[in-house]
Amino acid sequence: MSRAFSRPVRYLVIGGALLSEVALASGSDPVAPVLLALAVILAAAKLGGDVAVRAGQPAVLGELVVGVLLGNLALLGLPFFEPIKADQMVDMLARLGVVVLLFEVGLESTVGQMMKVGFTSLVVATLGVVTPFALGWGVGRVLLPEHSIYVHMFLGATLCATSVGITARVLKDLGKSQTDEARVILGAAVIDDVMGLVILAVVTGLIGAADQGTALSFVSIAIIVAKAVAFLFGSIAVGLWLSPKLFGLASKLKTRGVLLATALAFCFFLSWLASAIGLAPIVGAFAAGLILEDAAFREFPDEGVHELEEAIHPISQLLVPVFFVLMGMHTDLKSFTQPGVLSLAGALTVAAILGKQACALGAKAGMNRLAIGVGMIPRGEVGLIFANIGLALTIKGERVVDAATFSAVVVMVIVTTMVTPPLLKWSLSRPSA
Amino acid sequence: MSRAFSRPVRYLVIGGALLSEVALASGSDPVAPVLLALAVILAAAKLGGDVAVRAGQPAVLGELVVGVLLGNLALLGLPFFEPIKADQMVDMLARLGVVVLLFEVGLESTVGQMMKVGFTSLVVATLGVVTPFALGWGVGRVLLPEHSIYVHMFLGATLCATSVGITARVLKDLGKSQTDEARVILGAAVIDDVMGLVILAVVTGLIGAADQGTALSFVSIAIIVAKAVAFLFGSIAVGLWLSPKLFGLASKLKTRGVLLATALAFCFFLSWLASAIGLAPIVGAFAAGLILEDAAFREFPDEGVHELEEAIHPISQLLVPVFFVLMGMHTDLKSFTQPGVLSLAGALTVAAILGKQACALGAKAGMNRLAIGVGMIPRGEVGLIFANIGLALTIKGERVVDAATFSAVVVMVIVTTMVTPPLLKWSLSRPSA
Repeated sequence: MSRAFSRPVRYLVIGGALLSEVALASGSDPVAPVLLALAVILAAAKLGGDVAVRAGQPAVLGELVVGVLLGNLALLGLPFFEPIKADQMVDMLARLGVVVLLFEVGLESTVGQMMKVGFTSLVVATLGVVTPFALGWGVGRVLLPEHSIYVHMFLGATLCATSVGITARVLKDLGKSQTDEARVILGAAVIDDVMGLVILAVVTGLIGAADQGTALSFVSIAIIVAKAVAFLFGSIAVGLWLSPKLFGLASKLKTRGVLLATALAFCFFLSWLASAIGLAPIVGAFAAGLILEDAAFREFPDEGVHELEEAIHPISQLLVPVFFVLMGMHTDLKSFTQPGVLSLAGALTVAAILGKQACALGAKAGMNRLAIGVGMIPRGEVGLIFANIGLALTIKGERVVDAATFSAVVVMVIVTTMVTPPLLKWSLSRPSA
Repeated sequence: MSRAFSRPVRYLVIGGALLSEVALASGSDPVAPVLLALAVILAAAKLGGDVAVRAGQPAVLGELVVGVLLGNLALLGLPFFEPIKADQMVDMLARLGVVVLLFEVGLESTVGQMMKVGFTSLVVATLGVVTPFALGWGVGRVLLPEHSIYVHMFLGATLCATSVGITARVLKDLGKSQTDEARVILGAAVIDDVMGLVILAVVTGLIGAADQGTALSFVSIAIIVAKAVAFLFGSIAVGLWLSPKLFGLASKLKTRGVLLATALAFCFFLSWLASAIGLAPIVGAFAAGLILEDAAFREFPDEGVHELEEAIHPISQLLVPVFFVLMGMHTDLKSFTQPGVLSLAGALTVAAILGKQACALGAKAGMNRLAIGVGMIPRGEVGLIFANIGLALTIKGERVVDAATFSAVVVMVIVTTMVTPPLLKWSLSRPSA
């Protein structure tokens, strides 16, 4: 076949093949693009964090903003960072990062401390789900009167669940993760995740039933609720009983780094279990952090939760910025410019922010009520996941969430995420009320 | 359309859709399988490490063996761990792990210390490339007389490059990374990587030329050599000059974790650069570790290489076992049972091990010559990559590496990897000779 080519062409073909084979030998290591992405993200995170801290803001705001800048350079014809946005490996490292973050935050509290604020968290979570749901429904009814009741209901559902990553990080940045307010917010966010799951199941079930003309299956919804509640109470009860035994056994292993490896394996296993049950992995990571208390480590000489926290710190310093810079990069500024989107987006955002302020009513006297309401504001990826499901749902041929509504939800998620760090810092610096 | 289905079928369809949507909402987080894999790998690594340490062996041998066990359970009809072997994300974490390991090992030496043993390393590397190449060629000539000279040559090439991960880890496990012998081995392994690249280019070029009846392109080979040498000397010279300036700037950033983030970004960038030039990323990581010396950190109060090493330690405790357990898991025990493979495999393995003992001749008087020869034994993934390229090459329709030869190379890689930890431990405990 090659006889058909002239000599220079053949040389090119051979040379190209040779070079690509050499590249295959070592040059094309699949980790190479991830290495470059990590170098860029770490450098960007520190630069952004520096500017934020100088401006008196939590470092995470700087990481988000620098992510928005990098992620939208393509709008200026500079698409250098687009491969990072599309890289599945970087995405996975970001997800691993938020798991480690919630584990770290969970380690700072104990199950006992969470139980003390448990009822308050439940009330806060309930208020913070009911109010935004009603407000979102109302926004849909007023601004999208031509759509069906199910569309309005679905909009309400997208406003329910709190995305706790941002708040957890701001509380850490400000050294406030061990306050009662922090525990109420974190507890309420975990309960929110369960409630959001139930609401999504109910609303999706109602829409499916309306579309098909059948009845809603209450059994499948009851199963979801039962699994989630069983996970939360079961994993904590079993974990508290099992972890001292597990770590007691681990302490007998004669190799290095056993405490850290066992704790991480425990966290990753519970995160996986939460995911298998239908909850977010971060719920499992947070539960794992709560469960691990000094009692678990009594067989490790000179080691406890404090030493474990110190060992996890460098891992979170590597992985957590990946989550926040990438979250910023996925912010599509074009969403803000779509005609007809901004009024719906504005109304949804106001509903989202005001709706969570109802949480303040659930706080006990003496707590910083404002901070609790503000801490519940971010919707993050949960709202996006809901909207994404809505994109695929139809009732009698009408899409439940159309492109404009989806963009409005994206804007709501962006704004609630970006306003939280400065608002939370401000609210925490005020006297309690 | 659904009218065509009976009521129970419709219920099933709706229920299934509902559940899969709920799973999409949070349950199917793509990080979930990675979390489970990490939990399994960390637990297995510590158990394997414990057994190895109790048996007086380096922990890494236990990680490899436990990986072999998990990875071959499918032969007993228990394919539980097969998904871990196939997971691209886990593979990427393993590659990130070996980058972090070589960075860590590089940090333990300085450029100056490496320069002192530089000439010895060059002699050791040269002897350790020429001898196995000749022996491998000879094995091919004797055992595969029906094949062409290019096949024999290619077999020699697969025996050249040292895979330094295992040796670096054993030296760390035994606390010997800062000895002169360790530096000679690590330096020689880096030079080996460059030489391996050149040999692969030359042999592949010769085969391509023989197949096409054209001449070998010496220009493209010269370019490869020039790039590799320029990278090694260039990155070290520029890095030594630039790193104090870079870290001086970084020390002015007002956010936390700057030292670790900057050092990691520096390591990841150099690893990527090495890969872009056609070298293994670990060569860049090792160079980055050598370059970063206390001088680079003079602007960081109370922080230096020692503090950086302590911060990187937990990251390597998470990622490094992933590399070694996964390496074990990818060991296919079926390779040992293929008819007609074992004699070739045995001869290749002997050639691989004896060939690297020539390295001992290059060591200076007073050094532990035996340990240097043993430390160069492992072929690891480099030999596999070579063999893999050979699978795709043909001369006049004859495959350069056929399935049986490939299996023999796999066996050689497995054996050289597994014998190194105990042999190296034994050789280091003997008096120098």
